[in-house]
Amino acid sequence: MVDATPPPADAAIVLIGNELLSGKIRDENAYYLAGRLRALGVTLRRVAVVPDEEAAIIDEVRRCASAYTYVFTSGGVGPTHDDITLPSIARAFELPLIVDPSLEAPLRAHFGARMTPGHLRMATLPAGTELVRGDDFWWPAMVLGNVHILPGIPQIFRANFETLAPRFQGAPFFLASVYLDADEGSIAAALEALERDHGVAVGSYPRIDVQADHRVRVTIEARDGATVERATERLLSSLGTGARVVRVDTAAPASCPDQG
Amino acid sequence: MVDATPPPADAAIVLIGNELLSGKIRDENAYYLAGRLRALGVTLRRVAVVPDEEAAIIDEVRRCASAYTYVFTSGGVGPTHDDITLPSIARAFELPLIVDPSLEAPLRAHFGARMTPGHLRMATLPAGTELVRGDDFWWPAMVLGNVHILPGIPQIFRANFETLAPRFQGAPFFLASVYLDADEGSIAAALEALERDHGVAVGSYPRIDVQADHRVRVTIEARDGATVERATERLLSSLGTGARVVRVDTAAPASCPDQG
Repeated sequence: MVDATPPPADAAIVLIGNELLSGKIRDENAYYLAGRLRALGVTLRRVAVVPDEEAAIIDEVRRCASAYTYVFTSGGVGPTHDDITLPSIARAFELPLIVDPSLEAPLRAHFGARMTPGHLRMATLPAGTELVRGDDFWWPAMVLGNVHILPGIPQIFRANFETLAPRFQGAPFFLASVYLDADEGSIAAALEALERDHGVAVGSYPRIDVQADHRVRVTIEARDGATVERATERLLSSLGTGARVVRVDTAAPASCPDQG
Repeated sequence: MVDATPPPADAAIVLIGNELLSGKIRDENAYYLAGRLRALGVTLRRVAVVPDEEAAIIDEVRRCASAYTYVFTSGGVGPTHDDITLPSIARAFELPLIVDPSLEAPLRAHFGARMTPGHLRMATLPAGTELVRGDDFWWPAMVLGNVHILPGIPQIFRANFETLAPRFQGAPFFLASVYLDADEGSIAAALEALERDHGVAVGSYPRIDVQADHRVRVTIEARDGATVERATERLLSSLGTGARVVRVDTAAPASCPDQG
Protein backbone atom coordinates (compact mmCIF):
# COMPACT_ATOMS: atom_id res chain seq x y z
CA MET A 1 0.00 0.00 0.00
CA VAL A 2 1.57 3.28 -1.11
CA ASP A 3 -1.25 5.71 -0.38
CA ALA A 4 -1.16 7.73 2.81
CA THR A 5 -4.25 6.26 4.41
CA PRO A 6 -4.64 6.78 8.14
CA PRO A 7 -3.75 3.84 10.40
CA PRO A 8 -6.56 1.28 10.64
CA ALA A 9 -9.07 1.88 13.40
CA ASP A 10 -8.93 -0.15 16.59
CA ALA A 11 -11.34 -0.56 19.49
CA ALA A 12 -11.89 -1.71 23.06
CA ILE A 13 -15.04 -2.99 24.77
CA VAL A 14 -15.82 -2.35 28.45
CA LEU A 15 -18.53 -4.61 29.86
CA ILE A 16 -19.96 -3.19 33.08
CA GLY A 17 -21.85 -5.45 35.44
CA ASN A 18 -21.51 -7.65 38.51
CA GLU A 19 -23.83 -10.18 36.86
CA LEU A 20 -21.12 -11.08 34.33
CA LEU A 21 -18.45 -11.46 37.01
CA SER A 22 -20.66 -13.63 39.22
CA GLY A 23 -21.50 -15.99 36.36
CA LYS A 24 -25.22 -15.12 36.45
CA ILE A 25 -25.26 -13.98 32.86
CA ARG A 26 -23.11 -15.10 29.97
CA ASP A 27 -21.79 -12.27 27.84
CA GLU A 28 -23.46 -11.91 24.48
CA ASN A 29 -22.55 -8.34 23.67
CA ALA A 30 -18.74 -8.52 23.46
CA TYR A 31 -19.01 -11.67 21.39
CA TYR A 32 -21.49 -10.03 19.03
CA LEU A 33 -19.44 -6.87 18.77
CA ALA A 34 -16.15 -8.75 18.21
CA GLY A 35 -17.64 -10.36 15.13
CA ARG A 36 -19.26 -7.18 13.86
CA LEU A 37 -16.13 -5.06 14.30
CA ARG A 38 -14.17 -7.76 12.50
CA ALA A 39 -16.57 -7.66 9.59
CA LEU A 40 -16.30 -3.86 9.52
CA GLY A 41 -12.49 -3.96 9.45
CA VAL A 42 -11.97 -2.52 12.94
CA THR A 43 -9.35 -4.31 15.07
CA LEU A 44 -10.66 -5.12 18.56
CA ARG A 45 -7.66 -4.92 20.86
CA ARG A 46 -9.10 -5.27 24.35
CA VAL A 47 -12.18 -6.41 26.27
CA ALA A 48 -12.52 -5.71 29.98
CA VAL A 49 -15.29 -6.77 32.35
CA VAL A 50 -15.55 -4.53 35.41
CA PRO A 51 -17.96 -4.46 38.37
CA ASP A 52 -20.65 -1.83 39.03
CA GLU A 53 -18.13 0.38 40.84
CA GLU A 54 -17.30 3.93 39.95
CA ALA A 55 -13.51 3.70 40.37
CA ALA A 56 -13.27 0.58 38.21
CA ILE A 57 -15.42 2.09 35.44
CA ILE A 58 -13.55 5.40 35.46
CA ASP A 59 -10.15 3.72 35.33
CA GLU A 60 -11.01 1.37 32.47
CA VAL A 61 -12.95 3.87 30.33
CA ARG A 62 -10.25 6.52 30.68
CA ARG A 63 -7.50 4.09 29.79
CA CYS A 64 -9.34 2.73 26.75
CA ALA A 65 -10.50 6.14 25.49
CA SER A 66 -6.92 7.38 25.36
CA ALA A 67 -5.47 4.21 23.81
CA TYR A 68 -7.96 3.17 21.10
CA THR A 69 -9.88 4.74 18.25
CA TYR A 70 -13.26 3.60 19.57
CA VAL A 71 -14.53 2.49 22.96
CA PHE A 72 -17.83 0.69 23.49
CA THR A 73 -19.39 0.27 26.90
CA SER A 74 -22.18 -2.19 27.66
CA GLY A 75 -24.47 -2.01 30.67
CA GLY A 76 -25.27 0.13 33.66
CA VAL A 77 -27.65 2.64 32.05
CA GLY A 78 -30.93 1.55 33.67
CA PRO A 79 -32.92 3.03 36.57
CA THR A 80 -31.56 1.10 39.58
CA HIS A 81 -28.86 1.79 42.16
CA ASP A 82 -26.30 -0.36 40.34
CA ASP A 83 -26.70 1.58 37.08
CA ILE A 84 -23.79 4.01 37.43
CA THR A 85 -22.21 4.03 33.98
CA LEU A 86 -23.39 7.51 32.97
CA PRO A 87 -22.29 9.37 36.15
CA SER A 88 -19.03 7.40 36.19
CA ILE A 89 -18.21 8.38 32.61
CA ALA A 90 -19.07 11.99 33.44
CA ARG A 91 -16.53 11.87 36.26
CA ALA A 92 -13.98 10.11 34.07
CA PHE A 93 -13.96 13.11 31.74
CA GLU A 94 -14.76 15.73 34.40
CA LEU A 95 -18.05 16.69 32.77
CA PRO A 96 -21.20 17.87 34.55
CA LEU A 97 -24.34 15.73 34.45
CA ILE A 98 -27.35 17.24 32.74
CA VAL A 99 -30.92 16.01 32.32
CA ASP A 100 -31.58 15.57 28.59
CA PRO A 101 -35.05 16.85 27.67
CA SER A 102 -35.39 14.49 24.70
CA LEU A 103 -35.01 11.52 27.07
CA GLU A 104 -36.90 13.00 30.01
CA ALA A 105 -39.99 13.86 27.98
CA PRO A 106 -40.84 10.34 26.74
CA LEU A 107 -40.12 8.92 30.22
CA ARG A 108 -42.52 11.44 31.81
CA ALA A 109 -45.10 10.79 29.10
CA HIS A 110 -44.90 7.04 29.71
CA PHE A 111 -44.73 6.93 33.51
CA GLY A 112 -46.69 10.06 34.43
CA ALA A 113 -47.26 10.15 38.17
CA ARG A 114 -45.34 6.88 38.55
CA MET A 115 -42.11 8.54 37.35
CA THR A 116 -39.35 7.91 39.93
CA PRO A 117 -35.89 9.36 40.57
CA GLY A 118 -34.61 6.10 39.08
CA HIS A 119 -36.34 6.83 35.80
CA LEU A 120 -34.92 10.35 35.80
CA ARG A 121 -31.46 8.93 36.27
CA MET A 122 -31.78 7.25 32.87
CA ALA A 123 -32.12 10.71 31.30
CA THR A 124 -29.18 12.22 33.22
CA LEU A 125 -26.13 12.28 30.94
CA PRO A 126 -22.61 13.69 30.78
CA ALA A 127 -22.85 17.13 29.16
CA GLY A 128 -22.10 16.92 25.45
CA THR A 129 -23.40 13.38 24.94
CA GLU A 130 -24.74 12.87 21.43
CA LEU A 131 -27.91 10.79 21.15
CA VAL A 132 -28.28 8.66 18.00
CA ARG A 133 -31.70 7.18 17.34
CA GLY A 134 -32.55 4.14 15.26
CA ASP A 135 -35.78 2.52 14.16
CA ASP A 136 -36.07 -0.50 16.43
CA PHE A 137 -36.10 0.91 19.97
CA TRP A 138 -36.82 4.34 21.39
CA TRP A 139 -33.68 4.15 23.54
CA PRO A 140 -30.85 5.95 21.69
CA ALA A 141 -27.18 5.06 21.35
CA MET A 142 -25.06 7.58 23.26
CA VAL A 143 -21.76 8.94 21.99
CA LEU A 144 -19.33 11.04 24.00
CA GLY A 145 -16.14 11.72 22.09
CA ASN A 146 -14.87 8.28 21.07
CA VAL A 147 -16.87 6.50 23.78
CA HIS A 148 -20.07 4.76 22.68
CA ILE A 149 -22.38 4.04 25.60
CA LEU A 150 -24.75 1.12 25.00
CA PRO A 151 -27.20 -0.69 27.28
CA GLY A 152 -26.57 -4.25 28.46
CA ILE A 153 -29.84 -5.77 27.22
CA PRO A 154 -28.61 -7.66 24.15
CA GLN A 155 -31.52 -6.81 21.85
CA ILE A 156 -31.12 -3.06 22.45
CA PHE A 157 -27.32 -3.27 22.49
CA ARG A 158 -27.33 -4.77 19.01
CA ALA A 159 -29.94 -2.37 17.64
CA ASN A 160 -28.04 0.64 18.98
CA PHE A 161 -24.75 -0.63 17.61
CA GLU A 162 -26.24 -1.22 14.16
CA THR A 163 -27.54 2.34 14.16
CA LEU A 164 -23.95 3.51 14.72
CA ALA A 165 -22.25 0.89 12.51
CA PRO A 166 -21.95 3.01 9.33
CA ARG A 167 -19.57 5.28 11.27
CA PHE A 168 -17.03 2.49 11.71
CA GLN A 169 -16.65 1.10 8.22
CA GLY A 170 -12.96 0.44 7.52
CA ALA A 171 -10.94 -1.79 5.23
CA PRO A 172 -12.21 -5.32 5.82
CA PHE A 173 -9.98 -8.25 6.69
CA PHE A 174 -9.57 -11.21 4.37
CA LEU A 175 -9.39 -14.58 6.02
CA ALA A 176 -8.44 -18.06 4.86
CA SER A 177 -8.60 -21.18 7.02
CA VAL A 178 -6.67 -24.41 6.52
CA TYR A 179 -7.97 -27.34 8.57
CA LEU A 180 -5.32 -29.94 9.22
CA ASP A 181 -4.89 -33.37 10.69
CA ALA A 182 -1.48 -32.53 12.11
CA ASP A 183 0.39 -31.99 15.34
CA GLU A 184 0.54 -28.26 16.03
CA GLY A 185 4.19 -28.34 17.06
CA SER A 186 5.23 -29.98 13.82
CA ILE A 187 3.93 -27.04 11.79
CA ALA A 188 5.03 -24.26 14.16
CA ALA A 189 8.12 -23.32 12.12
CA ALA A 190 6.13 -23.20 8.87
CA LEU A 191 3.55 -20.89 10.47
CA GLU A 192 6.18 -18.58 11.87
CA ALA A 193 7.87 -18.32 8.45
CA LEU A 194 4.50 -17.56 6.86
CA GLU A 195 3.86 -14.65 9.18
CA ARG A 196 7.40 -13.33 8.79
CA ASP A 197 7.65 -13.61 4.98
CA HIS A 198 4.13 -12.70 3.86
CA GLY A 199 3.06 -9.96 6.25
CA VAL A 200 -0.06 -11.89 7.29
CA ALA A 201 -1.45 -12.66 10.73
CA VAL A 202 -1.36 -16.41 11.34
CA GLY A 203 -3.40 -18.15 14.02
CA SER A 204 -3.26 -21.80 15.07
CA TYR A 205 -6.16 -23.35 16.98
CA PRO A 206 -5.94 -26.96 18.15
CA ARG A 207 -9.03 -29.06 18.80
CA ILE A 208 -9.10 -32.14 20.98
CA ASP A 209 -12.83 -32.86 20.99
CA VAL A 210 -13.96 -35.88 19.03
CA GLN A 211 -16.64 -33.94 17.13
CA ALA A 212 -13.99 -31.97 15.21
CA ASP A 213 -12.93 -33.30 11.81
CA HIS A 214 -9.53 -31.61 12.20
CA ARG A 215 -6.83 -31.31 14.85
CA VAL A 216 -5.63 -27.80 13.98
CA ARG A 217 -7.26 -24.86 12.24
CA VAL A 218 -4.71 -22.45 10.78
CA THR A 219 -6.02 -18.98 9.97
CA ILE A 220 -4.29 -16.53 7.63
CA GLU A 221 -5.43 -12.92 7.63
CA ALA A 222 -4.56 -9.59 6.06
CA ARG A 223 -6.39 -6.57 4.70
CA ASP A 224 -5.43 -7.59 1.16
CA GLY A 225 -7.08 -10.68 -0.32
CA ALA A 226 -4.31 -11.48 -2.81
CA THR A 227 -1.75 -11.52 0.01
CA VAL A 228 -3.88 -14.04 1.91
CA GLU A 229 -4.17 -16.20 -1.22
CA ARG A 230 -0.40 -16.24 -1.79
CA ALA A 231 0.29 -17.09 1.84
CA THR A 232 -2.28 -19.90 1.78
CA GLU A 233 -0.66 -21.43 -1.32
CA ARG A 234 2.74 -21.18 0.32
CA LEU A 235 1.46 -22.94 3.44
CA LEU A 236 -0.16 -25.77 1.46
CA SER A 237 3.02 -26.34 -0.54
CA SER A 238 5.30 -26.23 2.50
CA LEU A 239 3.50 -28.74 4.71
CA GLY A 240 5.43 -31.93 5.34
CA THR A 241 4.11 -35.47 5.11
CA GLY A 242 3.07 -35.39 8.77
CA ALA A 243 0.25 -32.91 8.05
CA ARG A 244 -2.89 -33.97 6.16
CA VAL A 245 -5.09 -31.22 4.72
CA VAL A 246 -8.71 -31.85 5.73
CA ARG A 247 -10.20 -28.81 3.96
CA VAL A 248 -9.44 -25.23 2.99
CA ASP A 249 -11.61 -22.13 3.19
CA THR A 250 -10.00 -19.83 0.62
CA ALA A 251 -9.50 -16.12 1.15
CA ALA A 252 -12.74 -14.21 1.66
CA PRO A 253 -13.76 -11.09 3.56
CA ALA A 254 -13.99 -11.98 7.26
CA SER A 255 -17.65 -12.31 8.14
CA CYS A 256 -19.67 -12.42 11.30
CA PRO A 257 -19.82 -14.82 13.03
CA ASP A 258 -16.50 -16.22 11.95
CA GLN A 259 -16.32 -19.60 13.63
CA GLY A 260 -15.17 -23.01 12.47
CA MET B 1 -19.50 -12.17 61.99
CA VAL B 2 -17.25 -11.49 64.99
CA ASP B 3 -14.32 -13.80 64.29
CA ALA B 4 -11.14 -12.36 62.82
CA THR B 5 -11.30 -14.20 59.51
CA PRO B 6 -9.14 -12.84 56.70
CA PRO B 7 -10.87 -10.75 54.02
CA PRO B 8 -12.66 -12.90 51.43
CA ALA B 9 -10.55 -13.91 48.45
CA ASP B 10 -10.99 -12.19 45.11
CA ALA B 11 -9.76 -12.98 41.62
CA ALA B 12 -9.14 -11.77 38.08
CA ILE B 13 -9.09 -13.67 34.79
CA VAL B 14 -6.81 -12.77 31.88
CA LEU B 15 -7.81 -14.35 28.58
CA ILE B 16 -4.94 -14.28 26.09
CA GLY B 17 -5.66 -14.71 22.41
CA ASN B 18 -6.33 -12.86 19.16
CA GLU B 19 -8.98 -15.45 18.31
CA LEU B 20 -11.26 -14.11 21.05
CA LEU B 21 -10.80 -10.49 19.95
CA SER B 22 -11.46 -11.28 16.29
CA GLY B 23 -14.67 -13.13 17.09
CA LYS B 24 -13.37 -16.48 15.77
CA ILE B 25 -13.90 -18.20 19.07
CA ARG B 26 -16.45 -17.51 21.76
CA ASP B 27 -15.05 -17.52 25.27
CA GLU B 28 -15.96 -20.54 27.31
CA ASN B 29 -13.26 -20.41 29.96
CA ALA B 30 -14.06 -17.10 31.69
CA TYR B 31 -17.72 -18.03 31.77
CA TYR B 32 -16.95 -21.43 33.27
CA LEU B 33 -14.54 -19.98 35.80
CA ALA B 34 -16.91 -17.16 36.81
CA GLY B 35 -19.48 -19.74 37.84
CA ARG B 36 -16.99 -22.02 39.57
CA LEU B 37 -15.34 -19.20 41.53
CA ARG B 38 -18.79 -18.05 42.58
CA ALA B 39 -19.65 -21.51 43.84
CA LEU B 40 -16.34 -21.63 45.72
CA GLY B 41 -17.00 -18.26 47.39
CA VAL B 42 -14.27 -16.33 45.56
CA THR B 43 -15.29 -12.89 44.23
CA LEU B 44 -14.31 -12.42 40.59
CA ARG B 45 -13.53 -8.72 40.18
CA ARG B 46 -12.14 -8.41 36.68
CA VAL B 47 -11.87 -10.16 33.34
CA ALA B 48 -9.58 -8.86 30.61
CA VAL B 49 -9.10 -10.18 27.09
CA VAL B 50 -5.73 -9.20 25.60
CA PRO B 51 -4.04 -10.03 22.27
CA ASP B 52 -1.05 -12.34 21.76
CA GLU B 53 1.35 -9.46 22.45
CA GLU B 54 4.01 -9.41 25.12
CA ALA B 55 3.46 -5.84 26.33
CA ALA B 56 -0.29 -6.34 26.73
CA ILE B 57 0.15 -9.62 28.61
CA ILE B 58 2.84 -8.23 30.90
CA ASP B 59 0.81 -5.14 31.73
CA GLU B 60 -2.41 -6.97 32.52
CA VAL B 61 -0.86 -9.87 34.48
CA ARG B 62 1.28 -7.54 36.58
CA ARG B 63 -1.64 -5.30 37.39
CA CYS B 64 -3.94 -8.18 38.33
CA ALA B 65 -1.30 -10.07 40.33
CA SER B 66 -0.75 -7.05 42.55
CA ALA B 67 -4.44 -6.19 42.98
CA TYR B 68 -6.21 -9.54 43.52
CA THR B 69 -5.78 -12.67 45.61
CA TYR B 70 -5.74 -14.99 42.59
CA VAL B 71 -5.08 -14.49 38.90
CA PHE B 72 -6.00 -17.04 36.24
CA THR B 73 -4.65 -16.86 32.69
CA SER B 74 -6.11 -18.79 29.79
CA GLY B 75 -4.33 -19.50 26.53
CA GLY B 76 -1.00 -19.02 24.81
CA VAL B 77 0.87 -22.07 26.17
CA GLY B 78 1.06 -24.17 22.97
CA PRO B 79 3.92 -24.74 20.52
CA THR B 80 3.33 -22.02 17.90
CA HIS B 81 4.71 -18.51 17.38
CA ASP B 82 1.63 -16.88 18.93
CA ASP B 83 1.98 -18.87 22.18
CA ILE B 84 3.90 -16.33 24.26
CA THR B 85 2.18 -16.49 27.65
CA LEU B 86 5.00 -18.27 29.50
CA PRO B 87 7.88 -16.02 28.34
CA SER B 88 5.69 -12.92 28.84
CA ILE B 89 4.89 -13.91 32.43
CA ALA B 90 8.58 -14.60 33.03
CA ARG B 91 9.36 -11.05 31.89
CA ALA B 92 6.47 -9.62 33.92
CA PHE B 93 8.13 -10.91 37.10
CA GLU B 94 11.74 -10.63 35.84
CA LEU B 95 12.32 -14.36 36.12
CA PRO B 96 14.59 -16.46 33.90
CA LEU B 97 13.07 -19.13 31.64
CA ILE B 98 14.12 -22.70 32.33
CA VAL B 99 13.31 -25.96 30.56
CA ASP B 100 11.39 -28.18 32.95
CA PRO B 101 12.61 -31.79 32.73
CA SER B 102 9.27 -33.24 33.85
CA LEU B 103 7.61 -31.58 30.82
CA GLU B 104 10.47 -32.05 28.37
CA ALA B 105 10.78 -35.81 29.00
CA PRO B 106 7.22 -36.81 28.00
CA LEU B 107 7.38 -34.48 24.97
CA ARG B 108 10.65 -36.12 23.83
CA ALA B 109 9.25 -39.59 24.51
CA HIS B 110 6.15 -38.80 22.45
CA PHE B 111 7.68 -36.93 19.51
CA GLY B 112 11.14 -38.54 19.34
CA ALA B 113 12.94 -37.36 16.21
CA ARG B 114 9.93 -35.21 15.29
CA MET B 115 10.44 -33.01 18.38
CA THR B 116 10.61 -29.35 17.29
CA PRO B 117 11.71 -26.09 18.94
CA GLY B 118 7.98 -25.36 19.20
CA HIS B 119 7.44 -28.43 21.34
CA LEU B 120 10.37 -27.48 23.53
CA ARG B 121 8.83 -24.05 24.05
CA MET B 122 5.89 -25.75 25.78
CA ALA B 123 8.33 -27.05 28.43
CA THR B 124 10.09 -23.69 28.91
CA LEU B 125 8.74 -22.01 32.03
CA PRO B 126 9.43 -19.08 34.33
CA ALA B 127 11.81 -20.31 37.05
CA GLY B 128 9.88 -21.30 40.16
CA THR B 129 6.70 -22.39 38.38
CA GLU B 130 4.90 -25.12 40.31
CA LEU B 131 3.37 -27.90 38.20
CA VAL B 132 0.16 -29.45 39.53
CA ARG B 133 -0.96 -32.67 37.86
CA GLY B 134 -4.44 -34.12 37.76
CA ASP B 135 -5.89 -37.36 36.47
CA ASP B 136 -7.57 -36.33 33.21
CA PHE B 137 -4.77 -34.88 31.09
CA TRP B 138 -1.00 -35.17 31.20
CA TRP B 139 -0.66 -31.38 30.82
CA PRO B 140 -0.29 -29.85 34.30
CA ALA B 141 -1.74 -26.69 35.77
CA MET B 142 1.03 -24.14 36.34
CA VAL B 143 1.23 -21.89 39.39
CA LEU B 144 3.65 -19.00 39.82
CA GLY B 145 2.96 -17.08 43.04
CA ASN B 146 -0.70 -16.12 42.82
CA VAL B 147 -0.83 -16.54 39.02
CA HIS B 148 -2.41 -19.74 37.72
CA ILE B 149 -1.44 -20.41 34.10
CA LEU B 150 -3.97 -22.55 32.23
CA PRO B 151 -4.26 -23.54 28.57
CA GLY B 152 -6.98 -22.17 26.31
CA ILE B 153 -8.42 -25.50 25.16
CA PRO B 154 -11.62 -25.65 27.23
CA GLN B 155 -11.46 -29.33 28.14
CA ILE B 156 -7.93 -29.02 29.53
CA PHE B 157 -8.62 -25.60 31.08
CA ARG B 158 -11.46 -27.06 33.11
CA ALA B 159 -9.58 -30.20 34.11
CA ASN B 160 -6.57 -28.15 35.25
CA PHE B 161 -8.76 -25.74 37.19
CA GLU B 162 -10.58 -28.56 38.96
CA THR B 163 -7.22 -30.02 39.99
CA LEU B 164 -6.45 -26.67 41.65
CA ALA B 165 -9.97 -25.94 42.94
CA PRO B 166 -9.51 -27.29 46.50
CA ARG B 167 -7.00 -24.47 47.04
CA PHE B 168 -9.64 -21.79 46.56
CA GLN B 169 -12.46 -22.93 48.82
CA GLY B 170 -13.87 -19.93 50.67
CA ALA B 171 -17.14 -18.96 52.33
CA PRO B 172 -19.85 -19.53 49.71
CA PHE B 173 -22.37 -16.90 48.69
CA PHE B 174 -26.07 -17.34 49.35
CA LEU B 175 -28.37 -16.16 46.61
CA ALA B 176 -32.11 -15.55 46.37
CA SER B 177 -33.92 -14.47 43.21
CA VAL B 178 -37.27 -12.69 42.98
CA TYR B 179 -38.81 -12.70 39.49
CA LEU B 180 -41.20 -9.82 38.96
CA ASP B 181 -43.66 -8.49 36.47
CA ALA B 182 -42.76 -4.89 37.23
CA ASP B 183 -41.13 -1.81 35.76
CA GLU B 184 -37.55 -1.69 36.97
CA GLY B 185 -37.65 2.03 37.75
CA SER B 186 -40.69 1.63 39.98
CA ILE B 187 -38.77 -0.69 42.32
CA ALA B 188 -35.43 1.13 42.21
CA ALA B 189 -35.90 2.87 45.56
CA ALA B 190 -36.93 -0.38 47.28
CA LEU B 191 -33.84 -2.13 45.95
CA GLU B 192 -31.54 0.66 47.06
CA ALA B 193 -33.02 0.58 50.57
CA LEU B 194 -32.58 -3.18 50.68
CA GLU B 195 -28.90 -2.95 49.89
CA ARG B 196 -28.38 -0.11 52.35
CA ASP B 197 -30.33 -1.57 55.30
CA HIS B 198 -29.53 -5.28 55.04
CA GLY B 199 -25.89 -5.38 53.93
CA VAL B 200 -26.73 -7.52 50.92
CA ALA B 201 -25.71 -7.13 47.28
CA VAL B 202 -28.78 -6.47 45.15
CA GLY B 203 -28.89 -6.93 41.39
CA SER B 204 -31.68 -6.04 38.99
CA TYR B 205 -31.83 -7.62 35.53
CA PRO B 206 -34.56 -6.60 33.10
CA ARG B 207 -35.70 -8.88 30.30
CA ILE B 208 -37.46 -7.71 27.17
CA ASP B 209 -37.59 -10.97 25.23
CA VAL B 210 -40.99 -12.58 24.89
CA GLN B 211 -39.74 -15.99 26.09
CA ALA B 212 -39.17 -14.66 29.62
CA ASP B 213 -42.00 -15.14 32.12
CA HIS B 214 -40.80 -12.08 34.07
CA ARG B 215 -39.74 -8.52 33.32
CA VAL B 216 -37.17 -8.12 36.10
CA ARG B 217 -35.09 -10.62 38.06
CA VAL B 218 -33.95 -9.20 41.40
CA THR B 219 -31.03 -11.03 43.03
CA ILE B 220 -30.11 -10.75 46.71
CA GLU B 221 -26.74 -12.06 47.85
CA ALA B 222 -24.60 -12.26 50.95
CA ARG B 223 -22.26 -14.75 52.56
CA ASP B 224 -24.84 -15.42 55.28
CA GLY B 225 -28.01 -17.27 54.32
CA ALA B 226 -30.19 -15.86 57.12
CA THR B 227 -29.35 -12.32 56.01
CA VAL B 228 -30.47 -13.14 52.48
CA GLU B 229 -33.70 -14.65 53.81
CA ARG B 230 -34.50 -11.55 55.88
CA ALA B 231 -33.78 -9.23 52.97
CA THR B 232 -35.94 -11.32 50.62
CA GLU B 233 -38.89 -11.15 53.05
CA ARG B 234 -38.41 -7.40 53.37
CA LEU B 235 -38.44 -6.99 49.59
CA LEU B 236 -41.58 -9.08 49.15
CA SER B 237 -43.41 -7.11 51.84
CA SER B 238 -42.30 -3.73 50.50
CA LEU B 239 -43.32 -4.12 46.87
CA GLY B 240 -46.16 -1.87 45.78
CA THR B 241 -49.22 -2.86 43.80
CA GLY B 242 -47.40 -2.14 40.52
CA ALA B 243 -45.14 -5.16 40.99
CA ARG B 244 -46.46 -8.70 40.61
CA VAL B 245 -44.32 -11.54 42.00
CA VAL B 246 -43.96 -14.25 39.35
CA ARG B 247 -41.82 -16.62 41.44
CA VAL B 248 -39.15 -16.69 44.13
CA ASP B 249 -36.01 -18.79 44.43
CA THR B 250 -35.33 -18.70 48.18
CA ALA B 251 -31.87 -18.32 49.66
CA ALA B 252 -29.49 -21.13 48.71
CA PRO B 253 -25.75 -21.43 48.19
CA ALA B 254 -24.88 -19.91 44.81
CA SER B 255 -24.27 -22.74 42.40
CA CYS B 256 -22.73 -23.09 38.99
CA PRO B 257 -24.08 -22.27 36.51
CA ASP B 258 -26.26 -19.68 38.16
CA GLN B 259 -28.55 -18.46 35.40
CA GLY B 260 -32.23 -17.69 35.21
